[in-house]
Amino acid sequence: MTGAAGFIASNLIDRLLSLGHTVVGYDNLSSGQERFLSEANPSPNFTFVKGDILEATPLTAAMKGSDFVFHLAANADVRFGTDHPSRDLEQNTIGTFRVLEAMRGNGIKRIAFSSTGSVYGEAKVFPTPEDAPFPIQTSLYGAAKTAGEGMISAFCEGFGFQSWIFRFVSILGERYSHGHVYDFYRSLLGDPTTLHILGNGKQRKSYLYVQDCVSAMLLAVERATEKVNILNLGADEYVEVNDSVGYICEALGINPVRTYSGGERGWIGDNPFILLDTTKIKSLGWKPSLTIREGILKTLAYLQANTWLFEARR
Amino acid sequence: MTGAAGFIASNLIDRLLSLGHTVVGYDNLSSGQERFLSEANPSPNFTFVKGDILEATPLTAAMKGSDFVFHLAANADVRFGTDHPSRDLEQNTIGTFRVLEAMRGNGIKRIAFSSTGSVYGEAKVFPTPEDAPFPIQTSLYGAAKTAGEGMISAFCEGFGFQSWIFRFVSILGERYSHGHVYDFYRSLLGDPTTLHILGNGKQRKSYLYVQDCVSAMLLAVERATEKVNILNLGADEYVEVNDSVGYICEALGINPVRTYSGGERGWIGDNPFILLDTTKIKSLGWKPSLTIREGILKTLAYLQANTWLFEARR
Repeated sequence: MTGAAGFIASNLIDRLLSLGHTVVGYDNLSSGQERFLSEANPSPNFTFVKGDILEATPLTAAMKGSDFVFHLAANADVRFGTDHPSRDLEQNTIGTFRVLEAMRGNGIKRIAFSSTGSVYGEAKVFPTPEDAPFPIQTSLYGAAKTAGEGMISAFCEGFGFQSWIFRFVSILGERYSHGHVYDFYRSLLGDPTTLHILGNGKQRKSYLYVQDCVSAMLLAVERATEKVNILNLGADEYVEVNDSVGYICEALGINPVRTYSGGERGWIGDNPFILLDTTKIKSLGWKPSLTIREGILKTLAYLQANTWLFEARR
Repeated sequence: MTGAAGFIASNLIDRLLSLGHTVVGYDNLSSGQERFLSEANPSPNFTFVKGDILEATPLTAAMKGSDFVFHLAANADVRFGTDHPSRDLEQNTIGTFRVLEAMRGNGIKRIAFSSTGSVYGEAKVFPTPEDAPFPIQTSLYGAAKTAGEGMISAFCEGFGFQSWIFRFVSILGERYSHGHVYDFYRSLLGDPTTLHILGNGKQRKSYLYVQDCVSAMLLAVERATEKVNILNLGADEYVEVNDSVGYICEALGINPVRTYSGGERGWIGDNPFILLDTTKIKSLGWKPSLTIREGILKTLAYLQANTWLFEARR
């Protein structure tokens, strides 16, 4: 498991361990949290290796003996970083290539990959299916994840790999540590009387609860049998950013003055509407257990109980 | 012009110079041929800089004062190189990122890019339009060109660039120095009595004459005005590999015994059918001047007059 100390990966590790699997976690702890591994660490079936996916030698060594790689390490910040445009190339594109080469070095041929709905750029079809029209990328994050998908697929063709590529919407839930709920709650902790919102607040977004995400990934790995399995993971619904703010403020019992940066997009490359077609993953027998509203409230409750995150984060 | 001493780039340089433009050519001469610049070199409007696109400092310096970048440098070998899987990542993905960053360093915002019909993987729609269903990559070459397209598009969104992305079929004509006509003619020079063909010979492929390709690129840069302009460049027809062999053998007056490696594909990641929808470039007022047969014969004639290429090439 690359990115083992990250939000989604650490939840996936706990689930895998509970199912009796043996897991090696690999993470450079640049953004992951060691505390996210506190449930896994006591397990005799879990080993943690601190290392960077860009470093071929320790990465290859850490994989030895494994038969499946979950590659979740990534720069997960979709916002276009004009101050660090090389980060997506390095962490997401080159990093994924290093993982593929380390697998090849170990004779491991099965990989699950955390891609993103951002690969659709600004989609024209809603809900957006996996075979939507060839998109034009609008973020370096989406471009780098597309590159990762492409290299993985090419390794399937050229080296006999099998892959499960998951295009996530934004994920919510326990260990959530970046995104709009985090940003809003942190801001409201500091000043509950006002809240500044990027864009006009009318951006329509879809979210998925992390336990539903983990269930979907494991189900797909078990039941999807193509050489390259590409699957959207998301909810059938969406909410406006303003709705989300409403849920949070209602739960907190506050009513801040809302100010807006304005415009359809919260940042350069922001996508004003995200709704993925999940027919394919549902046809395998999966459905989400929580609504978006429930997921947001669960996330807020988690953050309220874990304010250490606001200190721990870079 | 990156990749200046290459097949297509050198022809494009000659055309640009004939139109009165000033051109700086940049090439590391790893696969380009200095002789391809023999027409350009005497021009006072042409400067050649030997350098690698992966080296930021000389690349940035070479671009100084330019207002448009044609980025044609690439590893142009689509065949899956199991012995050098990192080459496409380095030359095509990272190389393109270095070019974009060098442009940004110089305040240059317009770029034309040589992509490929290989980005469609094994297309399901024929002729294949630019907005074909989101493809699954089948070669590291296609994956790396897709990555290049994505980063260029993201720079358009994030940094105000404008781009013209050309998805080429295989290009034929003067200075052609790799591909099936090259391989077949070289083999027949050595032994005109037999010819070994990769695959079953029934692969259907589309080709375009280099002068038609150059005309299309310049027309598109002038007339296509979107932020990101993605254009297929190809012929409305295709030929089977066996047809192509027939044209070559007829022109040479020989009738070799044909042997086949068999199978629908000539190599791992080979695409058994390539035919691009060129409605978009034609709507701008372009049409090709040569048929595929004429292009193949012109290429053969060029190779017959330039057998030095068989010695010069790596």
